Amino acid sequence: MNPASIRHMVIFDLKYPAGSPEAEKFLQDGYDALTAIPVVRHFEVHRQVSAKNDYDYGFSMEFDSQQDYDTYNAHENHVAFVEERWKTEVARFLEIDFKQIK
Amino acid sequence: MNPASIRHMVIFDLKYPAGSPEAEKFLQDGYDALTAIPVVRHFEVHRQVSAKNDYDYGFSMEFDSQQDYDTYNAHENHVAFVEERWKTEVARFLEIDFKQIK
Repeated sequence: MNPASIRHMVIFDLKYPAGSPEAEKFLQDGYDALTAIPVVRHFEVHRQVSAKNDYDYGFSMEFDSQQDYDTYNAHENHVAFVEERWKTEVARFLEIDFKQIK
Repeated sequence: MNPASIRHMVIFDLKYPAGSPEAEKFLQDGYDALTAIPVVRHFEVHRQVSAKNDYDYGFSMEFDSQQDYDTYNAHENHVAFVEERWKTEVARFLEIDFKQIK
């Protein structure tokens, strides 16, 4: 990561059982919608496997700058995914943003 | 990341003010102690900059396998850093482990 880059992550639970077709569809649709946004770099879908917290999934992506992050937030794919899917299918979540200092 | 890899992260607050010499020393000493463990890959020190949570810092690293993760946990540098520094200088923390599925 360069000094201006931001790694944006969200850990979350779905309202569906782990491994269900509904969960898989949510993850795939999120991947498809968000990776189609040109400023999104290194998009990854993860299982959250630490026993020390209760979240099941993670999305991780990088932006080259705060401007790119703002572009992502305002992009129609992101807005639609949040409104149409995230707000109805995600049970709880925590957002984390990293800027590398060392 | 390959399918067996695990990205281990911890987000945390220190008992010191952000930007203080004590905070900087903690981050540097953590970097030095933990990057010296041979199984640790891609060790990064981050500021946590999302306004949507209250954590100030993050460590991120990758292991090629669960066996390497176990080796890290048992390594004398990790055990000493946890016992001598983490338990006395960290105010609160959350551990997150990612396995990439997409």
